[in-house]
Amino acid sequence: METLEELRILDREIVLLEHMSAVLAWDQESYLPKNGMNERAEQLAFLDSLAHEKITSPKIAELLDKAGSTGKNPSGPESIAFMDRAYLRLMRRRHEQAAKLPAGLVKEFSRATSLAQAAWVEAKTNDNFQLFSKHLSAVLCLKREYASCLKPGASSYDALLDEHEEGSTEAETRLLFSCLKSELMAILDKIKGCANIDNSMLHRPCPVSSQTKLARYMMDKLHYDWDSGRIDVSAHPFTTILGESDIRITTRYDKNYFPSGLFSTMHETGHALYELGINPAHEYKRTSLAKAASSGLHESQSRFWENMIGRSLGFWAQNFLAMKSMLGSAFVDLELNAFYMAINKVEPSLTRVEADEVTYALHIILRFELEAALFGGNLTVDELPAAWNQGMQDMLGLKPKNDSLGCLQDIHWALGLFGYFPSYALGNLYAAQLWEAMEKDGIKPEASAAAGDLASILDWLRSNIHKQGSIYKPEELIKKASGRELDPGCFVKYLNRKYGALYNF
Amino acid sequence: METLEELRILDREIVLLEHMSAVLAWDQESYLPKNGMNERAEQLAFLDSLAHEKITSPKIAELLDKAGSTGKNPSGPESIAFMDRAYLRLMRRRHEQAAKLPAGLVKEFSRATSLAQAAWVEAKTNDNFQLFSKHLSAVLCLKREYASCLKPGASSYDALLDEHEEGSTEAETRLLFSCLKSELMAILDKIKGCANIDNSMLHRPCPVSSQTKLARYMMDKLHYDWDSGRIDVSAHPFTTILGESDIRITTRYDKNYFPSGLFSTMHETGHALYELGINPAHEYKRTSLAKAASSGLHESQSRFWENMIGRSLGFWAQNFLAMKSMLGSAFVDLELNAFYMAINKVEPSLTRVEADEVTYALHIILRFELEAALFGGNLTVDELPAAWNQGMQDMLGLKPKNDSLGCLQDIHWALGLFGYFPSYALGNLYAAQLWEAMEKDGIKPEASAAAGDLASILDWLRSNIHKQGSIYKPEELIKKASGRELDPGCFVKYLNRKYGALYNF
Repeated sequence: METLEELRILDREIVLLEHMSAVLAWDQESYLPKNGMNERAEQLAFLDSLAHEKITSPKIAELLDKAGSTGKNPSGPESIAFMDRAYLRLMRRRHEQAAKLPAGLVKEFSRATSLAQAAWVEAKTNDNFQLFSKHLSAVLCLKREYASCLKPGASSYDALLDEHEEGSTEAETRLLFSCLKSELMAILDKIKGCANIDNSMLHRPCPVSSQTKLARYMMDKLHYDWDSGRIDVSAHPFTTILGESDIRITTRYDKNYFPSGLFSTMHETGHALYELGINPAHEYKRTSLAKAASSGLHESQSRFWENMIGRSLGFWAQNFLAMKSMLGSAFVDLELNAFYMAINKVEPSLTRVEADEVTYALHIILRFELEAALFGGNLTVDELPAAWNQGMQDMLGLKPKNDSLGCLQDIHWALGLFGYFPSYALGNLYAAQLWEAMEKDGIKPEASAAAGDLASILDWLRSNIHKQGSIYKPEELIKKASGRELDPGCFVKYLNRKYGALYNF
Repeated sequence: METLEELRILDREIVLLEHMSAVLAWDQESYLPKNGMNERAEQLAFLDSLAHEKITSPKIAELLDKAGSTGKNPSGPESIAFMDRAYLRLMRRRHEQAAKLPAGLVKEFSRATSLAQAAWVEAKTNDNFQLFSKHLSAVLCLKREYASCLKPGASSYDALLDEHEEGSTEAETRLLFSCLKSELMAILDKIKGCANIDNSMLHRPCPVSSQTKLARYMMDKLHYDWDSGRIDVSAHPFTTILGESDIRITTRYDKNYFPSGLFSTMHETGHALYELGINPAHEYKRTSLAKAASSGLHESQSRFWENMIGRSLGFWAQNFLAMKSMLGSAFVDLELNAFYMAINKVEPSLTRVEADEVTYALHIILRFELEAALFGGNLTVDELPAAWNQGMQDMLGLKPKNDSLGCLQDIHWALGLFGYFPSYALGNLYAAQLWEAMEKDGIKPEASAAAGDLASILDWLRSNIHKQGSIYKPEELIKKASGRELDPGCFVKYLNRKYGALYNF
C-alpha cells in the first residue's frame, strides 16, 4: 500500500530525530562538561521542535485521511491488514496529540527541562532545594499548559497519565492504588511482627571496579547484546534508545552498598531487553510501531528482571558463587541464604529505587498523590518538600533528614515526567501477571533461573511482549499475553507467598 | 544592522546543526556499539543535509544581497564596520561554495564517510586493505564529484586545498613542498653522519592508568578548561566542537610507548586551546565568524604545543620530575637530558603521527603527492598500497611491513578529508613563524616554559590568533600576527638550531 509506505517514510524521519535527541541527552547525562549545558539545551530544543513540526505536518494528516483513518475510526477500513490498522490508529493518535501542542511550547519545554536537569543535579549534590525550585516551577507551569492543551477542560493530570499508559485516568489509578495500599499495609503489618532480618553485610565497602565487573556479568547472564549497546554511569540510572540497534543503559555505584548498582543494572537491563526485542514486522522497522506498548509494560520488564528474577533464590543459587568471587575479600563469609534474606529485607526506607518489593509501591503512591495535588492546584512547588516529608511520615513512618533524601531524590520531575511514576507500580502488577502466564505455558521461571536457563524466560517475553511493539494498546497486550485483564491480585499473591516464606507468617 | 542580525540568526542555526553532528560523530568514534553504525550514518546524513539546505537557502542569498554583498564585492560597502564586512565575505563564500553542491551528493557523501570510518577501523585492526578499498573508492568517487562541482574545469584537487586553506593551489603547494623537501633532506643527511641517540627507554611498558594521569596533568599545565571539554580514547586522536563551550579531545595509549599518548594529547590540546580562545565579538558568538581561520593555522597551534613547547628542554626542565613520578617504577633511572634527546631522536619511520620534527613533513609530502595523483587521475585506489610503499622507500628508505603501517595508518581519507594533509606541514611553518613573532614581542617561549609560565605564551596566541576567529583570511592573519607573509625559512632555521645543538652538526 503506497500511502502507508509514504507515511512510514515520514515517520522514520521523526523516529530518527527522536534517536538523535536521545544521543544528545545520553551525552548530557553521562559526559557533558558543565559549560556545554546551555548550548545543549538549545540543541535539544531544536531537535524536539523539528520532530514536533514533522509529526504535526499537514502531509501526515493527508496521508492518514487517504489511508482511511478518521478521528472516529482511527484504524481505517477493516479491509486492510491488522498491523496496518494498528499503525494507522497509532499515528492518528500521535499526530492528533502533537497537533494540540503549540510549537513554541514544545521548544520552551525542551529547553526548560534540559536546564532543570542540570539544576537538579546541583541541587541534589548540594542538598539545596532552592537551587531547583525555580526550575521546577518553570517546568511545572509549562507542563500544566501542555496538559491542558492535550485535554482542555478535563483534569489535566488525566492527560499526562494517558500519555504514559493509554486509557489511564486519575480516578481509576486512585482506586487501584487505594486497594493496593491496603494490601501492602497488611503485609507490612504482618512483617512487623516477625523476626528482623540482618542485612548489615550488604553495607560493607565494595570497590567500584568489582561492582563494574559484577554489573557486566549480570548483563551477560541476562543476554544483553553488547554489540547493540553499552553501560555507563550517570546520576540517575536510565535506559535510552540512541538507534534501533543502540540501546544503552546507565547505572550508579555506591561504594558502601553494592546492591544499589547491582539491582539498578538488572532493572535497566530489563528495559533494554524489551527495546532490543521489539520487531513487529520488517516493513515497520524504525517506525513508531516499533516502540514499546506503554510505560507500565516497560516497567514490567525492568522490575521482572530486577525483582522477580534478580531477588529470587533460584537465580542466586546459580549466580551466588560467581558474584562472591567478584566482590572480593570483604565478602568471603557471605552465605547464600543470608544473602537472599538480606536483599529481600522489608523495611520502610526513604529511597524509592532501593525500596523492597512490599514498600516500593507506597513510594509511588506518595508521588502520585503529590503530582495529582500539583496538577489539581492543591499544592505549590514551595510547599512540596514539606508535603513530601509529611507523606513519608504518614505512609512509612519516616522523615527524610534532608531534601536530597526527600523530594529531590528522583530526576523525573526535572525531566518534566509527570504522570510517569504510576507506571512503576503498574509494572509490578503486570510483571506478576506475566509470571503466572508463563507458568501456565509450562515455564517455571524460578526453576529455570536456578538451572541457569534465562533464555526460555526471555524467549517467552520476547514473543508475548517485546516483539509486538505498539501493535496493541497496553490493556489489549496484557490480555493477549496473560488471557485476562490487569489483576492486582497476582502481585499480592506473589508477595504473600514470597514474604510469607521469608518471614514465616 | 537589522539584516546582519537576521543573517547571524540563520547562521547560528547552521552552526548548531554542525555542533550536533559533532556530538554524533564524537560518540561514533568513542562509544558507539557496532550495531549502531548503520543508523548513525543515517542520522549524520540527515543533519548534514539539513545544514546544507539551510546554508544554501535563498533567504541567506537575499540577506547577503540586501547587506550589499555581491559576488564581485563579497564584503559589501566600505561604509559598514570592518568585522561586519569580514562576516559578509565569509558567509558569501560559505553560501556560494555550498550552493555548488547538489543536496543528494551532500547526503550521499555523509553516509559514505560514516560507513567508511567503521570499515577503516576494521581494515586497520585486521590489516586488510580489501575491507576498506571498496569504501575508499566510493568516498573518492563522491569527493571527485564534490571537487568538480566546486571548481568545474579546474584541477579538482585545487578546490579541496582551497577548502582547508583559502587560496591554496596544487602548483603553489608543490613548489613550497619541493623547497621544504630539499631543506629537510639536507638536515637529515647531516644527522645521518652524527652519533646515534638511544631512545630505547621510551619503549618500556607503561600502564595506561599512568599515561591517563600524565595526559590530564599535561592538559592542566596547558591551561585546558575542564569545564568546557573532556578527554576520551579513540582509534585516531582528534579534537571536536560539540558546542561553543564543549571542545573535546581524544587520544590513544600505547602500553609500550608512552610518548604516543603524551604527545598526541598535547597536540589535540593545542587544537582545543585555539577553539576555546575564539571570540571575535559578542554579537558574533556561535556564528561562522567564531570559527578557526584555516586548517593550517589550526595545525600551527597543535604542533606548536606538541613540538615547539612539548619537545623543548625548557618545558621538561619544569615538568620532568612530575612526569617521572607518574610513570612509576619502570622509569626511576630516567634522566632529563637523555629523555630530551630521546623524544627528539631523528630517524626515518613508518608512522606520521610519531615522526620526528625533521621527517614529519616528508610523510605529508608523500600524502600530498598521492592525493594529487588520485585526483589527477594518475592513480587508482587499488594501486594505492603499492604507490604508498614505493613512496616511503624513495623518500625515507623504508618499506611498511603491512598496510596498517602503510596507507591504512590515517583516518583522513575515510572521513573524506582530501586536501587536509598539507595543513600539518603548513602548521609547522606557521608555528615557527609565530614563535619568532612572539620573541619580537619580548616573550621567550622556551624560557617561559622553563619557568612554568605557559600562560604568557597562551595569552599571546589568544590575542594574535585564537580570538580573531575567521575575521581574516589565513594569509592576512599570519601577516598581521608576524608582520610578514608565510616564510618557510623560520621553520628551517628552527630545525637547524635545535637539531644542530642536539646532534652537534
